[in-house]
Parts: sequence; C-alpha cells; structure tokens
Amino acid sequence: MSQALHPADAAHAAPLRQASTTLTLHTPGPGLHEFTRETAQWVAAQGMDSGLLTLFCRHTSASLCIQENAAREVRGDIVRWLDRLAPESAAYAHDDEGPDDMPAHLKSILTGVSLSIPLLGGQLALGTWQGIYLCEHRRMAHRRQIVLHLVGA
Amino acid sequence: MSQALHPADAAHAAPLRQASTTLTLHTPGPGLHEFTRETAQWVAAQGMDSGLLTLFCRHTSASLCIQENAAREVRGDIVRWLDRLAPESAAYAHDDEGPDDMPAHLKSILTGVSLSIPLLGGQLALGTWQGIYLCEHRRMAHRRQIVLHLVGA
Amino acid sequence: MSQALHPADAAHAAPLRQASTTLTLHTPGPGLHEFTRETAQWVAAQGMDSGLLTLFCRHTSASLCIQENAAREVRGDIVRWLDRLAPESAAYAHDDEGPDDMPAHLKSILTGVSLSIPLLGGQLALGTWQGIYLCEHRRMAHRRQIVLHLVGA
Repeated sequence: MSQALHPADAAHAAPLRQASTTLTLHTPGPGLHEFTRETAQWVAAQGMDSGLLTLFCRHTSASLCIQENAAREVRGDIVRWLDRLAPESAAYAHDDEGPDDMPAHLKSILTGVSLSIPLLGGQLALGTWQGIYLCEHRRMAHRRQIVLHLVGA
Repeated sequence: MSQALHPADAAHAAPLRQASTTLTLHTPGPGLHEFTRETAQWVAAQGMDSGLLTLFCRHTSASLCIQENAAREVRGDIVRWLDRLAPESAAYAHDDEGPDDMPAHLKSILTGVSLSIPLLGGQLALGTWQGIYLCEHRRMAHRRQIVLHLVGA
Repeated sequence: MSQALHPADAAHAAPLRQASTTLTLHTPGPGLHEFTRETAQWVAAQGMDSGLLTLFCRHTSASLCIQENAAREVRGDIVRWLDRLAPESAAYAHDDEGPDDMPAHLKSILTGVSLSIPLLGGQLALGTWQGIYLCEHRRMAHRRQIVLHLVGA
C-alpha cells in the first residue's frame, strides 16, 4: 500500500471547546433508521470548523452503524443477516423479556453502541455513500436516546 | 423518526484538559467481566463536568463491550453465542497457540477494542441497563490492560 | 477482578490542540492490510505527548480493525471466517453491484469503521501484538481513504 497526505492536512491552532446533546429518536420497529440529517444539523449549529463527533447509544437492544445510504435493499439484507446470526429460534437462558430480546442484545454487541466521526472543513468526514443509522433490534416501537459529543474549534 | 433536543443541551466554555490512566484487570477465565465501577471511580476523581471517555483494550484475544448489567443469564448467552460464531472446532491455519487462540482473535474483532462514552453533568452517559465489560476470550486467567483517556472540562 | 492504577497515571495541564489528515491507501484486493507505521509516523510528526487518535474509514465495503501483527496466518483465518459469516452464496436483495458487494457491507458492519487509540508518552497505546489494519472486503483493488484526527497536547 502507498499512502499520501491529503492537501487539507492541517494543525488547528484555535482553542478547543466542546458541546453535547441528546437526540431522542422514535423507532417504528426493527430495522436501520437513518439520522444523518439530524446529526449534521446539530453539528452545523455548533459552528466548528474541525473536530471529533462521537455518538453513543444508551441502550443494549439497539445500536449504531454507518452504512450505505443509497440502495434501500442493503438495509433489508442487513436485517435478515443479523436475524440469521442471532436467530430467535436459538435456545437462550435469558428469555423472560420475549423471544426478540436476547437476539437484540447479540445484534447490539455485533454492531456496537459508539461511533466517532471527524469533522473537517465544517463537515462530517462521511464518505459519499455513508449514512448514520440507529439499528432497532426489538419488535416493538421504541424511543431511543443517542448522546452526541463534539470537541473541536 | 422525530427527534428533540434534550433540555441539558449545552455548549461548554471552560478550557479543556485531559487525563489518562491504565487499569489492570485480572480475569479468571472466559466470560464478560464488568468494570463499570472502577471506570466511574477514576472518571469521578478527575473532577470534570462534561467530556468524552475512551476505553482501549491493549490485547487481541480480549475485547470490550457495553451490555446489560441486570440479568446475569445475558452474559452466559453472549459467551455461548460467540462460541457458536467462532467455534474451536473449526479448522484454522493459526493453531500453534492452542485451540482457543484463533477463536479469541475472531471474537475480539466482532466485539471491538475501543469504546467511547460521553460524560454529562459529571456522570458517564450510560443508560440505566448499560454496564462496561471486559470480554475475556482465552481459557486461562489473564492480566489485561485497559487504557482510559478523558478529555473535557 | 482487581485493578490498579498505572504509575504513569497523569492529569495533563498543557493547552489542548488538534490535528487531522487523510491517508489514501491502495489495497490490492481482499484481506487485512496493515498501516500501523503510516499512522504512527503521522502521529509522531504532530509532536504531542498525550492525547486521543481516532481513525475513520470513509467507505461501506471496507473497514478498520486492530489485530495480531505477528502470525501471518491469523489474517488469513480472519478473512475465511468473515467469508463464512457473510457468504457470497447467500441470497441478497441487493446484488446489482456484484456478488462480493453485499457481503462486503456485512463484513464492514461487523468490524466497524471507527477506532480510537489513546496516545501516552508520545506513543500510541497499542499493545505489543496489536497492529492497525484496513480490511478490504471487495475483490478488486481499491483506493481507500482513512481520516485521522488527533486531539491532545
């Protein structure tokens, strides 16, 4: 592999500051629910040019991921793949919160609850095809809290 | 999905500082070992109101996750699920460190070695049911190092 | 588990600053491609003693992981394991970008696109056996962008 520094390579001299908020997202049921726009709007309102955004999901049966924001079929394939890896039909010791609860914990571990995205030139450094998704793993509708933390200047 | 800003939404003006430490955790063998209390104690001792905590596991056969801190059965189900996804019985090219070594690497990749958790109002922004776990994937007892880094004010 | 504070435990008083860059890595095809050296060189050039490095992969069919940097066989075993968990032979709704595309998205979700590593005493806090890898999940050679963000002093 070769590597090259990007022309925008920069050391940033402005004094650093931080900001944080909690987004409350209402999920209609299982699936990947995009909230890139809500995230980018809050980040833009902080008026920083460069920094680091961290997202944290405060739940153990929902999670976060970054995935393709174009082809809608990708999300369905992801949900069905997670169902195959962590099926409701398996025998779990923890089954008193419903057959979808333990699989939801497993899917949450696989996908993860924290994500960090740099901010460059006032924009999140997401690639062209990347969107930010809340992964709801329970059958029922839920209200989910995502904490955003931004440090930068 | 709808979203709403949390009332505690805030830009923090105090000058930022950082702190770091290394926790050494003794694991008795395979399983998820909680160290939320040790982490929260160190964070509290830094006297910050808001910021970002990052945990980093310095190993390739152990890892970190955030999971349910209530029902004990959840942890057993997670261990058995990881055993099914990365079984010792599979044929691995790398087998000279014992049959549990290569599965341990695979489980470490699936769960991950870094985690970031915002600090809000002097408290880690963990949800009610979230605990921080060191996942030991080897059979033998180990001494594991977790680096904590905190930036905030 | 017991825990002990590391002797290097420290609160760092110097004013914080940040730096960022984008590495462009050319991958020859599927597999785990190490770029620890390129990352460490850029970090060293920023002249910080302590801080937090975050790496972010700007793609949805490639990803990041930290794994064993010694035994070469480990990487082959990881690739074959990912192929078993997300096989090309499965039936996917999203198949118009080739049979390796949807499996690549799934492998990217499993391994993740962001990683954070503390900086201690001027060095990344990687363990002895840890290397930083770009995971290429597509069959063809690609040019991949990894954004690095460093905050510290």
